Amino acid sequence: MKNTLMIDRLSIEKMDKRFRTNLINCISGFKSLNLCGTISTEGVTNVAPISSVVHIGADPPLQGMIIRPVSVPRDTYQNIIDTGYFTLNHVQEGFYKQAHQSAARYDRDKSEFEKTGLTAEFINDFKAPFVGESIVKTGFKLIEEIDIRSNGTKMLIGEVIQMHIPESFISDDGYLDIHKAGSLTVSGLDGYYKTEIIDRLSYPKPDKKLESIG
Amino acid sequence: MKNTLMIDRLSIEKMDKRFRTNLINCISGFKSLNLCGTISTEGVTNVAPISSVVHIGADPPLQGMIIRPVSVPRDTYQNIIDTGYFTLNHVQEGFYKQAHQSAARYDRDKSEFEKTGLTAEFINDFKAPFVGESIVKTGFKLIEEIDIRSNGTKMLIGEVIQMHIPESFISDDGYLDIHKAGSLTVSGLDGYYKTEIIDRLSYPKPDKKLESIG
Repeated sequence: MKNTLMIDRLSIEKMDKRFRTNLINCISGFKSLNLCGTISTEGVTNVAPISSVVHIGADPPLQGMIIRPVSVPRDTYQNIIDTGYFTLNHVQEGFYKQAHQSAARYDRDKSEFEKTGLTAEFINDFKAPFVGESIVKTGFKLIEEIDIRSNGTKMLIGEVIQMHIPESFISDDGYLDIHKAGSLTVSGLDGYYKTEIIDRLSYPKPDKKLESIG
Repeated sequence: MKNTLMIDRLSIEKMDKRFRTNLINCISGFKSLNLCGTISTEGVTNVAPISSVVHIGADPPLQGMIIRPVSVPRDTYQNIIDTGYFTLNHVQEGFYKQAHQSAARYDRDKSEFEKTGLTAEFINDFKAPFVGESIVKTGFKLIEEIDIRSNGTKMLIGEVIQMHIPESFISDDGYLDIHKAGSLTVSGLDGYYKTEIIDRLSYPKPDKKLESIG
């Protein structure tokens, strides 16, 4: 029998800062792992790992991400506000260490692309750089900036402008097989994971048995 | 050589609705998978799968989730607004089909817990039900409701009030091993995945080599 802890609000407050940061960053569950590509008005490219991307809607095609303007990745935030564009690029196993390293606080006049050995790829005159190594890349235009009053963070909402995805990973029904593409998932601040398919399930209706559509 | 598609804004608009919904729901990357437990003012419990939970901050401990009030899971939204409390419960392989099924549009006077065979568990007088089957459970108090103007969705921000987690899954540094706990991750609307650890990496600093801390 496992010993289940009951952790209340007061014991969270009393935790060591690093302990609390690790624990609270894990309780949401597995997170998406993207590299966010941007460029400054001076032309310096920037790349930073983001695990806070969240689906907002499909029509119009919108994704959001949480960003802390006064902390890392502040360059990412400033570049998006200044230029209005950013890219999100799935991270695969071949470059997850560079992705993790790109979160280091480099000087603002240096490109994290150069520092980490990742490739800034400009495609079709899109204003922000994609990550050349990534298999699944999406370019966004900033359309809404939201203040989260509870802790001074922001949510940036981007509209999908263009996607670059190998055709073979897209099913007939539009499902994108990001497992086959090798996209990773992250837990907390630093735990990297591959995936293993269990199943795809049919649309749920009352009194109808679920079927595998995998 | 893989044939990489360039999908632009216009081709997204022209897509069949279901195709677009599947594709855009996949491009964020792997998502967390939680069951959200709530109760109505009439005492009817509700449970619904949520893949839009996002980390907002560790101090104070905050998580957010995107919710579409005019659609499923509207009961979840209304219950949270009415009572001010909700729970998020990681989904493991033993009950992922019930989790998926709980998204079906049941009548509002019936509990999805009963309909799907999941257990509504009330702990320590917390106002919202936890999911008895879940290994990682967190109870939240609603502290902020945010309108997303771009598409009429909302983000609800919850503050962590209590957590119920087996002690053996929490490392000395606070890292919660949700892989060992068996928590699943989801892609798109209906793809369920287990995970496989690659590594935990040390804190990234300029000019310092990353180390495995796994």
